[in-house]
Amino acid sequence: MITAPPRGFERAEFEHRTANAQERMAELGFDALLLSTEPEVRYFSGFHSQFWESPTRPWFVIVPLDGIPIAVIPEIGQSGMVKTWIEDIRTWPAPRPKDDGITLLAGALNDLKRRFGQIGVPLGHESHIRMPAADFARLRDMLPAFDIADAAPLIHDLRNIKSEPEIAKIRHVCQLTSDAFEALPASLQAGQSERQNCQRLRIDLLERGADNSPYLIAGSGPGGYDSIIMGPSDRIIEPGDVLIIDTGTVYDGYFCDFDRNYAFGAPDDDLKRAHDVVYRATDAGIEAARPGATCADLAAAMWRVLEDGGALGNDVGRLGHGLGMQLTEGPSHTPDDHTALQPGMVLTIEPGMEFAPGKNMVHEENIVVREDGAELLSRRAPQDIPVVDCR
Amino acid sequence: MITAPPRGFERAEFEHRTANAQERMAELGFDALLLSTEPEVRYFSGFHSQFWESPTRPWFVIVPLDGIPIAVIPEIGQSGMVKTWIEDIRTWPAPRPKDDGITLLAGALNDLKRRFGQIGVPLGHESHIRMPAADFARLRDMLPAFDIADAAPLIHDLRNIKSEPEIAKIRHVCQLTSDAFEALPASLQAGQSERQNCQRLRIDLLERGADNSPYLIAGSGPGGYDSIIMGPSDRIIEPGDVLIIDTGTVYDGYFCDFDRNYAFGAPDDDLKRAHDVVYRATDAGIEAARPGATCADLAAAMWRVLEDGGALGNDVGRLGHGLGMQLTEGPSHTPDDHTALQPGMVLTIEPGMEFAPGKNMVHEENIVVREDGAELLSRRAPQDIPVVDCR
Repeated sequence: MITAPPRGFERAEFEHRTANAQERMAELGFDALLLSTEPEVRYFSGFHSQFWESPTRPWFVIVPLDGIPIAVIPEIGQSGMVKTWIEDIRTWPAPRPKDDGITLLAGALNDLKRRFGQIGVPLGHESHIRMPAADFARLRDMLPAFDIADAAPLIHDLRNIKSEPEIAKIRHVCQLTSDAFEALPASLQAGQSERQNCQRLRIDLLERGADNSPYLIAGSGPGGYDSIIMGPSDRIIEPGDVLIIDTGTVYDGYFCDFDRNYAFGAPDDDLKRAHDVVYRATDAGIEAARPGATCADLAAAMWRVLEDGGALGNDVGRLGHGLGMQLTEGPSHTPDDHTALQPGMVLTIEPGMEFAPGKNMVHEENIVVREDGAELLSRRAPQDIPVVDCR
Repeated sequence: MITAPPRGFERAEFEHRTANAQERMAELGFDALLLSTEPEVRYFSGFHSQFWESPTRPWFVIVPLDGIPIAVIPEIGQSGMVKTWIEDIRTWPAPRPKDDGITLLAGALNDLKRRFGQIGVPLGHESHIRMPAADFARLRDMLPAFDIADAAPLIHDLRNIKSEPEIAKIRHVCQLTSDAFEALPASLQAGQSERQNCQRLRIDLLERGADNSPYLIAGSGPGGYDSIIMGPSDRIIEPGDVLIIDTGTVYDGYFCDFDRNYAFGAPDDDLKRAHDVVYRATDAGIEAARPGATCADLAAAMWRVLEDGGALGNDVGRLGHGLGMQLTEGPSHTPDDHTALQPGMVLTIEPGMEFAPGKNMVHEENIVVREDGAELLSRRAPQDIPVVDCR
């Protein structure tokens, strides 16, 4: 097992995140941020629990214009939250459908010093409000002195730039997943299902020190696969098949997200050509990932190689995205996303194409943008598609 | 490995769910249901993918007053959705922040036959809308002929009653998890961390046929634990400690949710007494779980035993809940939840108490309500706390 970076973060990390948020809040005229999703709450508080798997109870963090964030949470979370840097923790005995924290939350917001009369809530792209919509409507009625404005861009801008401790966690899970993918050809077996082959990888990742693999999918078919978001299924893999496995594996709440392709028996020329084109498109994406370039530039650099290589199309909708506390984060490598890359952004480089009707080839690597270009966090896939011996 | 029930469902299951929904919709005056979360989309379509781990793209299912549901989804989901019973699949190239399916969705809703002028959307307790709030506001503006009304109670009523194929999946994962918990004392080790002990269990569950354990927490401490929703941590377990492990492990998209307690070395009298009290409270909950009894009745039956046994309190907020496609579903065993039990409801029976300051004891079993009372899906915990040999 490779040496793992320390779990959690120093207090300075949360102070830094909060100060950065507060600087932007002052510019935008927000007296507070009101946050309700797992990554948002974890980002500002450090509260890290699998309990979010239960959808019953809402949880809230308020980031005021000055000072330490305030937690407004179910009583069951008190003993966990007191171990974070948060000091002001307000609880109610959830679940209590008639008033599931709403009066308590409104009270906490109305107690704040009111300078701008505006509260930021993530409302835009790549956001949702994790509470009953009817309760959010009630809350608004209980905040007559405040307007609600969109804080999604602020949150994205902050979270897009990863700190070195965050990058270390992502690098660690990328490296152990690279180890597992490189060892995989020896254990992959034709005559077994996608599911059987994937469960061995899932176990191997745990044995190598991953916390879990919330995302581990497979697609397979003769000479190519038709989907990269379904499976693993009970489809039996046969000689002549191509298998893709894509995984979002986690260490201490940070994801890797990359895939690998495997040929069962010697690949035919079409497959070799498709693998080569997408490999070179990945190179082009990595090469283009420099500060100042935009996501649209990355998309264009990759698409040029794919198009020259005979791409029939791509139904993924983008050629990569941000990565961190979530399997996918903004920005997106699409022609319309003009986000400029900055040092500290962690991104996937994910070119893919339909190279024959119903047959796709998708590659993916994880990088962090540095002053002088991309640093690979995953270890580069083999240039030639790995072959599983089927004799 | 025990024989696993078949994956997926027959078409009749989805026809039945849809017909039940449509009957209630006609009563409530809904021309359509608009649904956006993973379990809601899966419940009506059968679309089952780990891709929901990516929060970027919204997905929608519309249940019309007559006929088969309609999917309005990102293009990347097309090849998976065509394998379900859904026929009308409308896609857009997501992510497209400027119009992420909103025009397409509004068009699909405005095309519907309008009889009542009302669309049901889950707005109440145990619901949220999984799309940007700003996009939902735009959508409402594009539906001038429709009011939006709360469909959360309708969805809960439908999903609360499980079909036999659903129960078979839950029973299966309960049984394999019972096997793993019963085998665990032989592999638990003092001198190792909560995390090390839990990762072996996680691997064992996969080897026994589980798909994954999205929820697997631990709490430990000398003579008791202070939380049941954090961990596993790097805390080293010592002789004299009590360890609780609680897991939501999954088979084919259906959860178990139960825990077990282990004493490291011989338990002292306080611990033995606490274990006995909570064991008997569990018995009382199981005994009370009959059609016609309410969740409040179950809570009262359990709380009476806990209170008589010297409970100082309970910070969980309830003594059990519904279970199925999610780790926790409604209803809740609280004094205020007057939901009447009906055959086919799958529930956790989860009494717990603080028995000394900072020391908790929580038990949990999974049942299905039958005409003549509770059928256990998990295998009952041992009456005496299992002891891990620390000599």
